[in-house]
Amino acid sequence: MPSAVTSEYRLSPEAKLRAFAANVLERVGVPATDARTVAEILVSADLRGVESHGMARLDSYYVSRIREGQLKAAASIAVVRETPTTILLDADNGLGHPAGKRAMDSVIAKAKTVGVAFGAVRNSNHFGIAGYYAMLALPHDLIGIASTNSTRFGAPTYGKSIMYGTNPWAYAIPAQHEPAFVLDFATTTVPRGKLEVYQRKEKQLNPGWAIDANGVETQSPAEALKGALLPLGGLGVDNGGHKGYGLAVLVDIMCGVLSGGAFGNDLPLPSSGPEPGKISHFFGAIDINGFRDVGGFKADMDRELRAFKDSEKAPGAERIYVAGEIEYEKTLENRRAGVPIHVKVWSGLEKLASELGVPFDLEK
Amino acid sequence: MPSAVTSEYRLSPEAKLRAFAANVLERVGVPATDARTVAEILVSADLRGVESHGMARLDSYYVSRIREGQLKAAASIAVVRETPTTILLDADNGLGHPAGKRAMDSVIAKAKTVGVAFGAVRNSNHFGIAGYYAMLALPHDLIGIASTNSTRFGAPTYGKSIMYGTNPWAYAIPAQHEPAFVLDFATTTVPRGKLEVYQRKEKQLNPGWAIDANGVETQSPAEALKGALLPLGGLGVDNGGHKGYGLAVLVDIMCGVLSGGAFGNDLPLPSSGPEPGKISHFFGAIDINGFRDVGGFKADMDRELRAFKDSEKAPGAERIYVAGEIEYEKTLENRRAGVPIHVKVWSGLEKLASELGVPFDLEK
Repeated sequence: MPSAVTSEYRLSPEAKLRAFAANVLERVGVPATDARTVAEILVSADLRGVESHGMARLDSYYVSRIREGQLKAAASIAVVRETPTTILLDADNGLGHPAGKRAMDSVIAKAKTVGVAFGAVRNSNHFGIAGYYAMLALPHDLIGIASTNSTRFGAPTYGKSIMYGTNPWAYAIPAQHEPAFVLDFATTTVPRGKLEVYQRKEKQLNPGWAIDANGVETQSPAEALKGALLPLGGLGVDNGGHKGYGLAVLVDIMCGVLSGGAFGNDLPLPSSGPEPGKISHFFGAIDINGFRDVGGFKADMDRELRAFKDSEKAPGAERIYVAGEIEYEKTLENRRAGVPIHVKVWSGLEKLASELGVPFDLEK
Repeated sequence: MPSAVTSEYRLSPEAKLRAFAANVLERVGVPATDARTVAEILVSADLRGVESHGMARLDSYYVSRIREGQLKAAASIAVVRETPTTILLDADNGLGHPAGKRAMDSVIAKAKTVGVAFGAVRNSNHFGIAGYYAMLALPHDLIGIASTNSTRFGAPTYGKSIMYGTNPWAYAIPAQHEPAFVLDFATTTVPRGKLEVYQRKEKQLNPGWAIDANGVETQSPAEALKGALLPLGGLGVDNGGHKGYGLAVLVDIMCGVLSGGAFGNDLPLPSSGPEPGKISHFFGAIDINGFRDVGGFKADMDRELRAFKDSEKAPGAERIYVAGEIEYEKTLENRRAGVPIHVKVWSGLEKLASELGVPFDLEK
């Protein structure tokens, strides 16, 4: 993620990016409302500085899969089970974003009525950044939760097979004057994309990031890409690797098992490519009013977040952050100055536009 | 934790340990029902092999604090707010266990009625192992969640002040024939007790465990004990330390801020000793039936857990575990053979018994 825009990046206004992504998706058969939802969520990732889940994936994760018939452009989302506090949707092998947003919207409405609600979606596909869905709760003064399982990249503690995805957990909690607390993290130490970046830059990996195909810890990106990611906490149990592994399995259970979707060995492998409808999501919302008045809570959230931010810095540290703060500031900056799009992504989008006959005008 | 009993340990039947702990607590004024609850939860920790939260703490965390007037033996737990899906209790600076169990029992009853529920407790004290409360959900075919903030030991990412506790998250999820999935983990890399053990054994700490009083990573237990623990993921952000830090703050928010209890800078420091009622807890339960039939879910849980356990082992690894499995097997072993109590703990209990005039008969 660039902290300043370099010659490797070009800037585009968020509205133009959204309009372009929606046009592209509509052109391959995605209904207009769904296309706008996907575009909104993709651009929210770029705004937050999470390039790996933004416009860079428009073609590879979504458009190409629709064109290859792996993912339904116009899916019929079905309610499988619904109670006042829970909802289960079947995404019909459609885009993860409209199904995810519908589930989270339902969970929010339920939580506003009954105080607490959870939802799950099965038979879905990649849904972008988990944090987006959790943050939908914020304007409603709710605590939002979102999660998804994914293509497998990680090995269990003491294991060598790739068995689980980067399986993120996201939590969004409103504050008063401070930006909301937004924790959105993969349960592997690093994402797989980081291995690719290190390979390109010919850099050594840190210990604790990955193992090779034989199950031995490696600092070689090339060997790691043939092996598996390690869970948050790294190899073995000494540095807490069993905790990251446990969190990854927890995500797989709450998403895949609870929804009746794919889980464990049935999830796609990187080598197998995407498999239709094998991804599941999980969402939650908690009404603060069920515990205390929102005003006092938000004022205390400001005190809580400031306490950490104002605490004494380690030698050489410029600043202490709380979760979501960097992404919040980046969003403000990118809204103002334009969203940085890597030149390779930019030319890929230009090529896609020309293939599909969609106007390409992303210049600021 | 001893995997086999050595000369450092003596064995006691769980029933004798419970009876003794309850007697001791009653003798210092804890009502009989509450004393039994505390005893049950303390012994559950020893059964699971979590000695740091079992009989070893009977005096130091509970009895001594009652005798010194820091903690109320007979507290009046009050319901502060209650809805069909939420409950907030004030523990009146009493023992954490009865308040925690009452909150979790209420959350379970609500989840059985309405599908999902959460509870919080403020003005409480140390409540033992978080996993115990989460596991209360299991016989009801619910998913259980429990958490607590604690005395501060950990530093924020890029910080040097001790700002948050070992703040555990616990999740319990039932399976069919397999033992339940029980994930119960501190959000620091290691607990503070581990630094003390390493100091005694004159061993070096791993990198990623702790910093010294100047905020510099240290492998010296003595320096670390004057400094702070690091979050799961270690120093800085390269190995995901910001994730562990985020999880720790999340716990502090869900326990301390949501309950209107103490949080952040108001939590006790190790140097200040315990402070009355400064600890808060958070509990949740989710009815599986809100998503799918329990039978199918539990059968799939078996498949899920077996997939990980049966996956290929890393070189030199004997076995792959899932969360809670080691503690489950230890419980079976300790039920059968007796619960190992460290000789120092044993003699401490004997001394306590003599001081209080409580019969001491823990022999097998």
